[in-house]
Amino acid sequence: MQSDNPTAAILVIGDEILSGRTREGNAHYLSQVLNSIGVDLREVRIVGDDHDQITAAIRALDCSLGGAWDMLFTSGGIGPTHDDITADAVAAAFGVGIEINEEARRVMVERWQARGVEVTGNRLRMARIPLGAALIPNAHSAAPGFHIGNTYVMAGVPEVFRAMVEAVVPGLPTGRPSVSEALEVLRPESDVADELRAVADAFPDLSLGSYPFQSGQRYGTSLVIRGLDDKRVTDAMTLLRERLAL
Amino acid sequence: MQSDNPTAAILVIGDEILSGRTREGNAHYLSQVLNSIGVDLREVRIVGDDHDQITAAIRALDCSLGGAWDMLFTSGGIGPTHDDITADAVAAAFGVGIEINEEARRVMVERWQARGVEVTGNRLRMARIPLGAALIPNAHSAAPGFHIGNTYVMAGVPEVFRAMVEAVVPGLPTGRPSVSEALEVLRPESDVADELRAVADAFPDLSLGSYPFQSGQRYGTSLVIRGLDDKRVTDAMTLLRERLAL
Repeated sequence: MQSDNPTAAILVIGDEILSGRTREGNAHYLSQVLNSIGVDLREVRIVGDDHDQITAAIRALDCSLGGAWDMLFTSGGIGPTHDDITADAVAAAFGVGIEINEEARRVMVERWQARGVEVTGNRLRMARIPLGAALIPNAHSAAPGFHIGNTYVMAGVPEVFRAMVEAVVPGLPTGRPSVSEALEVLRPESDVADELRAVADAFPDLSLGSYPFQSGQRYGTSLVIRGLDDKRVTDAMTLLRERLAL
Repeated sequence: MQSDNPTAAILVIGDEILSGRTREGNAHYLSQVLNSIGVDLREVRIVGDDHDQITAAIRALDCSLGGAWDMLFTSGGIGPTHDDITADAVAAAFGVGIEINEEARRVMVERWQARGVEVTGNRLRMARIPLGAALIPNAHSAAPGFHIGNTYVMAGVPEVFRAMVEAVVPGLPTGRPSVSEALEVLRPESDVADELRAVADAFPDLSLGSYPFQSGQRYGTSLVIRGLDDKRVTDAMTLLRERLAL
């Protein structure tokens, strides 16, 4: 699909994903949010709680560090325990120091005191923020995410991740959301490949995908046409229906 | 976690994942299979139907091409339509040609003829295999995956992916499967961080993770200890319980 939309990557951090213990869902959620504001998600990476892997991935993915994409969103590893190493790895990737952020500390202490929770060193660990980063507030937990370069660092807990995404989205560069039309046919994929290719050739600005499914003993295919322009997508779907004699 | 286990990466290929249309599940499934045979999954990448991105990822991830991990498993993009470009990208990554594989052609034609399905050019497109690759049979569909270098190329359709994984697993190098014990406590993560860190320091060969959850109005934490040695994991859990006065 041709597009001048801003591009993005997601970096998911956590041993529990790679071990199979937890099924990742934050990237799927964010992919839909990004699509709705016209940001083209181009890559997702999942790595473990490993300092060097996290640092290398940030450098590879954030264009402000010479990486491939306009924006990078990370999920996971900013909690209070020893295996939460994302903030340190981000600081290392950007070549900046990391220390207790006074604004983060103030917000967190206020919330904890209101709830009668003791302020401990482990809790304050979550206020350690790379120098130069801006905080990402969230309604759900006291601990903030942060934003440095073109990287947005967010929590892995799904409710908190979503709250941080909501806080971040209004400030993001946006593009034209893609629109799509889908058609299900009860024919195997290889049966409709010629027609699909003919339409793809006639509409090089659109993305045409085919996704096989099984319905009882019959093989079917979902045909999806995606693009930035409503009318082009509709015209392409009309041509596809004609070609398929539907 | 210290381990001499073989390492692996997964590369998921498909625009439909990045657009948010489809929630990825093959990587989660394979992560559990790999864990069960003692292969350490170290990285997952998701890219679109983009030749250069696929090629670059294969080179970065397969150690036989100078990449980071012992084995690479790919999912998606080996069907019969114009957007199925994985086989060509794999051939390019390995610097080999690609042509109709006679064994693949024979198997596919036999199955189609048995089912009374016409043999078309689009169907035969699925028999195009990089030179030097070995086929991965599967019970579910006629079209094979293939294996070249240390890369295993499999279908994206979940049923077919699983059938191919089953065909591949008996031939993989294996290691010691990790074992884990979990403990749920109704205390927030920051409340148990000191105890967790103390146990982590005492058992540097193990991986200790903490995963917050919410239960009604209460915050809880799942504590997971993972390692290769049953007894070490049990000893660490005993120490953790002591530290937490449980």
